[in-house]
Amino acid sequence: MAKVAVLGAGSWGTALGIVLADNGHDVRLWTHRKEQADAINLTHKNENYLEIMIPEQIKAYHDLQEAITNVEAIVIVVPTKAIREVCKNLNGLLDSSSATLIHASKGIEPISLKRVSQMIEEEMEGYQYEDIVVLSGPSHAEEVAKRQPTTVTVSSVNRSNAKIAQDLFINESFRVYTSTDMVGIELGGALKNIIALGAGISDGLGYGDNAKAALITRGLAEIARLGTSLGANPLSFLGLPGVGDLIVTCTSVHSRNWRAGNLLGKGNKLEEVLDQMGMVVEGVRTTKAAYQFAKKQQVEMPITTGIYQILFEDKNPKDVVEQLMNRNKREEMEDLAALLRSINTK
Amino acid sequence: MAKVAVLGAGSWGTALGIVLADNGHDVRLWTHRKEQADAINLTHKNENYLEIMIPEQIKAYHDLQEAITNVEAIVIVVPTKAIREVCKNLNGLLDSSSATLIHASKGIEPISLKRVSQMIEEEMEGYQYEDIVVLSGPSHAEEVAKRQPTTVTVSSVNRSNAKIAQDLFINESFRVYTSTDMVGIELGGALKNIIALGAGISDGLGYGDNAKAALITRGLAEIARLGTSLGANPLSFLGLPGVGDLIVTCTSVHSRNWRAGNLLGKGNKLEEVLDQMGMVVEGVRTTKAAYQFAKKQQVEMPITTGIYQILFEDKNPKDVVEQLMNRNKREEMEDLAALLRSINTK
Repeated sequence: MAKVAVLGAGSWGTALGIVLADNGHDVRLWTHRKEQADAINLTHKNENYLEIMIPEQIKAYHDLQEAITNVEAIVIVVPTKAIREVCKNLNGLLDSSSATLIHASKGIEPISLKRVSQMIEEEMEGYQYEDIVVLSGPSHAEEVAKRQPTTVTVSSVNRSNAKIAQDLFINESFRVYTSTDMVGIELGGALKNIIALGAGISDGLGYGDNAKAALITRGLAEIARLGTSLGANPLSFLGLPGVGDLIVTCTSVHSRNWRAGNLLGKGNKLEEVLDQMGMVVEGVRTTKAAYQFAKKQQVEMPITTGIYQILFEDKNPKDVVEQLMNRNKREEMEDLAALLRSINTK
Repeated sequence: MAKVAVLGAGSWGTALGIVLADNGHDVRLWTHRKEQADAINLTHKNENYLEIMIPEQIKAYHDLQEAITNVEAIVIVVPTKAIREVCKNLNGLLDSSSATLIHASKGIEPISLKRVSQMIEEEMEGYQYEDIVVLSGPSHAEEVAKRQPTTVTVSSVNRSNAKIAQDLFINESFRVYTSTDMVGIELGGALKNIIALGAGISDGLGYGDNAKAALITRGLAEIARLGTSLGANPLSFLGLPGVGDLIVTCTSVHSRNWRAGNLLGKGNKLEEVLDQMGMVVEGVRTTKAAYQFAKKQQVEMPITTGIYQILFEDKNPKDVVEQLMNRNKREEMEDLAALLRSINTK
């Protein structure tokens, strides 16, 4: 059994720690807040994040050095905006680069437009791109913590690293598939949060399931279009980290991106929404990054553009939805033609 | 404005009639039950089907001859098992084949394994395959009747027939796209009901959103695999009549296929479920047809096979789900490789 450090004790980090503990691993759950680490060790609960008892093999740490000493794998599950800082801190503390590096964060950095693995590669000394693994898929943390059946994908351009991650996490209720399309897996996981915001906005405006299904479907086409222009295999958007994750995020009230969108659709302003949530809403930053990306890549992303306008240009959500609905009638297949062409050239 | 006959006064036929009436057309809504026609004309409501007032331009008919005289379009919205009979009756009554024939029924005929348009082509005198249009997409009848935003696709191998249907139905809240992939649109609409049964079973067993998202995603891959082997364009499964319809049917309690699956997951037997529902559950017949199709085409369909075993071989739903979860760990992309190959050859 392995020693594994999980960096980030939010709901997803805690849930992944539980999976690892169930598999018999020695889990060190690190948080930057000392009082949270103390509370977890004392009560075996992670108040405000998960309503479930945490197995005793999971020890919480506030000292990063202690958490990572002699570990065989490090799982990074901090918000995207904290990725670079955590990596910088790790650099000074790791005495070798032998630990497998896995991340389970979903986002893109605005301005630089980097994926999480690219940020890690840039910051971490002794690690190359092919040393990094991403874990992603349709997975509410609450359900994983309750050992409800869940499937995810681990991906690395180096297949053997993906297999190491698969072996660490796989068990009866947590099924792990492998893939080598790192770009597609990371972009699918990040970009789907934009569409989740949109689904929440549609629900918040009082529209029904038909409207939401249309938005999710057209949204899938446009994020696949952007992803493909950036080198992703379009088939990844058809798999668990694409359409699977999109469905779970867009149709569940558990999703914080959906919840943020819902509040926006009900007429709240972005600052009010973020205040009310009190948690990181990755989709907001990701919308900005994707909007910039789409311009740069000259990819048409009408839904992302509409959500960007609601978030950052104070545009009325109802006007945006009407504008999306009233685009010219056209061939459904046209939209997918770019995808087809890109598949044909692979 | 056109005279249009809508054959079948269930919830979907009635909702489509409302769209046509909103567009100013003269709508004749035909039902085989005289008392239902009388009640609609008297009360302008369709009790048991839709909780909404029906516009006065819609007249209900029990006499098929009266309903279809001088119409410019006929919209067939009867259950799949009644398609052949309705077409036979039309034959004796139509004095020309000038009316555009549109159907909005979702199913496949067991044993013959024919799609609805193929059944219509076989039965209707004076109509060829290219004269027939299918209308399909993510659309709860209730929401369409309430003028909630909805998107659908109309498809015919003859593009100009699809455009006629598009012009009849399109309006501000009902967006209509066109496609020429009749096979993909019909199979997507029919096969998705199998996965909706599965989603209901998963929910009925008490599993969560993660399990359901996995089932929908893997289900989409297997119905696309079968569809592609039968000549569909795999991209149709990525569009509104594929993933869009799948989402709406699998995540909503409005869906009768989901509801039937839910009762099965809770331990009820098929006959009890069908008794309790009192409505046609297309997914049951479609599961049988797809299971036969998959054998004939030598396409692997593990989810469809599992649901077939629950429906017709009295297998325990929990055992089936566990069997699906515990398939060997493997590359996510493998499953999609058949799709990729088929796209590459188009």
